[in-house]
Amino acid sequence: MPQATATIGVVGLAVMGSNLARNLASREGNTVAVYNRTTAKTDELIAEHPEAGFVRTTTVQELADSLQRPRTAIIMVKAGAATDAVIDELTEVFEPGDIIVDGGNALFTDTIRREAAIRDTGIHFVGCGISGGEEGALNGPSLMPGGPAESYETLGPILASIAAVAEDEPCVTHVGTDGAGHFVKMVHNGIEYADMQLIAEAYDLIRRGTGKSPAEIADVFQEWNSGELASYLIEITAEVLRQTDEATGEPLVDVILDAAGAKGTGAWTVQTALDLGVPVSGIAEAVFARSLSSRLGQREAARGLPGPSQEWTVDDPETFVEDVRQALFASKIVAYSQGFDEIAAGAAEHGWDIAKGDVAKIWRAGCIIRAQFLGRITEAYADDPDLSALLLAPYFRQALGEAQEAWRRVVVTAAQAGIPAPGFSSSLAYYDGLRAEQLPTALIQGQRDFFGAHTYRRTDRDGVFHTLWSGDRSEVSAD
Amino acid sequence: MPQATATIGVVGLAVMGSNLARNLASREGNTVAVYNRTTAKTDELIAEHPEAGFVRTTTVQELADSLQRPRTAIIMVKAGAATDAVIDELTEVFEPGDIIVDGGNALFTDTIRREAAIRDTGIHFVGCGISGGEEGALNGPSLMPGGPAESYETLGPILASIAAVAEDEPCVTHVGTDGAGHFVKMVHNGIEYADMQLIAEAYDLIRRGTGKSPAEIADVFQEWNSGELASYLIEITAEVLRQTDEATGEPLVDVILDAAGAKGTGAWTVQTALDLGVPVSGIAEAVFARSLSSRLGQREAARGLPGPSQEWTVDDPETFVEDVRQALFASKIVAYSQGFDEIAAGAAEHGWDIAKGDVAKIWRAGCIIRAQFLGRITEAYADDPDLSALLLAPYFRQALGEAQEAWRRVVVTAAQAGIPAPGFSSSLAYYDGLRAEQLPTALIQGQRDFFGAHTYRRTDRDGVFHTLWSGDRSEVSAD
Repeated sequence: MPQATATIGVVGLAVMGSNLARNLASREGNTVAVYNRTTAKTDELIAEHPEAGFVRTTTVQELADSLQRPRTAIIMVKAGAATDAVIDELTEVFEPGDIIVDGGNALFTDTIRREAAIRDTGIHFVGCGISGGEEGALNGPSLMPGGPAESYETLGPILASIAAVAEDEPCVTHVGTDGAGHFVKMVHNGIEYADMQLIAEAYDLIRRGTGKSPAEIADVFQEWNSGELASYLIEITAEVLRQTDEATGEPLVDVILDAAGAKGTGAWTVQTALDLGVPVSGIAEAVFARSLSSRLGQREAARGLPGPSQEWTVDDPETFVEDVRQALFASKIVAYSQGFDEIAAGAAEHGWDIAKGDVAKIWRAGCIIRAQFLGRITEAYADDPDLSALLLAPYFRQALGEAQEAWRRVVVTAAQAGIPAPGFSSSLAYYDGLRAEQLPTALIQGQRDFFGAHTYRRTDRDGVFHTLWSGDRSEVSAD
Repeated sequence: MPQATATIGVVGLAVMGSNLARNLASREGNTVAVYNRTTAKTDELIAEHPEAGFVRTTTVQELADSLQRPRTAIIMVKAGAATDAVIDELTEVFEPGDIIVDGGNALFTDTIRREAAIRDTGIHFVGCGISGGEEGALNGPSLMPGGPAESYETLGPILASIAAVAEDEPCVTHVGTDGAGHFVKMVHNGIEYADMQLIAEAYDLIRRGTGKSPAEIADVFQEWNSGELASYLIEITAEVLRQTDEATGEPLVDVILDAAGAKGTGAWTVQTALDLGVPVSGIAEAVFARSLSSRLGQREAARGLPGPSQEWTVDDPETFVEDVRQALFASKIVAYSQGFDEIAAGAAEHGWDIAKGDVAKIWRAGCIIRAQFLGRITEAYADDPDLSALLLAPYFRQALGEAQEAWRRVVVTAAQAGIPAPGFSSSLAYYDGLRAEQLPTALIQGQRDFFGAHTYRRTDRDGVFHTLWSGDRSEVSAD
């Protein structure tokens, strides 16, 4: 039996797992045991990184024996059946008080199920969202652990040791019990979809409106990156737009096939929001824009559909670019507001005590949507923890007020010019819907009562009512 | 043991079940056995409708004994656990070749599960979508049965006897195996959400733009009902808008609280589309518009958000109303095209052989979205069964071409005036996205490759590629 020298174990040594293991090993105080179903992979990692001082294990029993108590192991395997299999194996060899962490991209309902399934064994199960991709895993990700609060006493310091750092604070917090961590990671990804779609629309409008080249638009994004839009995604947009394709000498963005892929977390965010009754239209439009782009046969067949008859010209490119910047900022505020609405609704539904300001805080570094902007969100919730909607916080309210005329001009231009801007226009419609004195959904309630006796409420008194549409059309109480 | 005199049984005698039973009993050749868990309800129905000649049964065994072979029973109970319980009971007393029909609003995946679970017993399980509400159930619904094709030999004539009739054809067809019927019913409801939202936006724009009263707008809808928009929903919109509230003397639509309810099938449609990778943005915006409207606290808090500074006036009300009509028609075409895309994708995924033209045919009468328009859809698929997208059929293509300038003007007006028109604007963005030569999703692929090594395809050659963004930025093959 090997000596229990390791402070943490990593199971699954594909790129994400290897990088996380190396990150852990590089921090003082951590000794990392590594295990992979195929031992060759384990040996390869150990050989390539002797500096890491990994503890080699070839069975889960060996892994368990190598770990100091309470044992802590992070699973980094494919979400789904593979994860379940590893959890089962670890549950066999772990003891009460030990901690199993799932660092994969699990659907939060799976995490809730898994946590409930092993709770009685006394082993702690922690679903932990990890954002930042391969690079984040290696150098400092944003970490979103859920699971039992007690487990965080042991796990917290370990995770803090490898997390990204923003203003001297590690980007990790105990998000809430059971599936809370994976839930918040899911919403993070949904917001990421919206963010990327909005940036793509901004680029498209500027390019088609001003005739600027991708490299020139890279300069625009680089400039934006020093203002209120400053963020990782804006930064890498400049990098991508500036890239020239070696083979053709063309801008790379013109050579990349415009069929966008997706790995499913954006769709989960929207599906979950639909279960919760939260409108996340900006995120949904972003997910749909990707699936639309991938329907190549249909797009080919649709190319002849008529567009606007008038040629489109932008009078003043500089003003237009600034309008687009404001539209992007305003639409982004809407996307984040919708995402935080979903977090609030998820927390209420699942009994999680989620500090929304802390969530914004741990997204400031390490993750894909990292941005200055997130500090504003933390401040907004610090000022008012019961904020009804993020976009109603004073800073965001003012920003929207300043941006809204430009935002409208951009949506108008897109519609007139025949340029698809589903993210910008949907966000604006959401904004105008939220602030509307009265919505025409009263008519929808009337229709529903007419054909399905679904009843309605009244503006002037309590109760539930139904009009006898196929009778004498009098109103009856339907309480 | 009672004599087996009944040709069909109905289980569950709430409004929908009672009405369906009465409908069945009123048609020549049918003798209807009725059963309800609480016998008082059975007795009440029989007492109220002696003309129906119902066969009274008080246990499922009695129900089974009362039915001629192959026995056929339609379950009309609450979707979910209640349905499972009744299926279990019937499975106990039915025999191979007998048919259990679930006429509730089941999620199609439940229907697939249920059909698979009892298939080995030799009993046929048929999930049947029923549209038309209480009134349709009584006088002629649109019926969408799935399940084994053999069962349709027995079931078809019974369902045809009670279905709505459109141009001498009963609105029923065997949609496909297992869950196909409930799937198609689900998409029907999703389209219904979109249809209703678009009508609500049209009403709102006309009202705010022209100052017409609800009764005057009722006239507009009544007129529209004699043109290409002719449909049940347009017809009842006129009825609802014309209704005066007794208590206040105000238009009823102004007294109804503008918080729209939903029973979940719209959300299912969107969630399923997300699983299938089909963009159904118009349906999604309609579902979200309802959930937004119900967030009363948030809306209250958002009322002060700034809107456009300029007052909005419509120069020529008549032109504006006609523009809105065209925007409504074009957006409606998009919603149906998205819905039929979802049906095609669902059929491909689940191995259903769905005749899309027949689906449109059985929606021409009996159901909520019944419309002249549906005949055009049937024609489109008759002309080209492999039509890539509904909106590309010659009739719809031409209609969109004629409407698109007006549609753009309406979306522009809504954005300028600060009136939420998520359905109109989302549909237009979808239209412009589908017909776009190039989409900015190439940039999204570049971003994904940058931060997650997700790779991309190229426009000029086959294969999968990755740029070494953190290396020398050369491109490598990632096949």
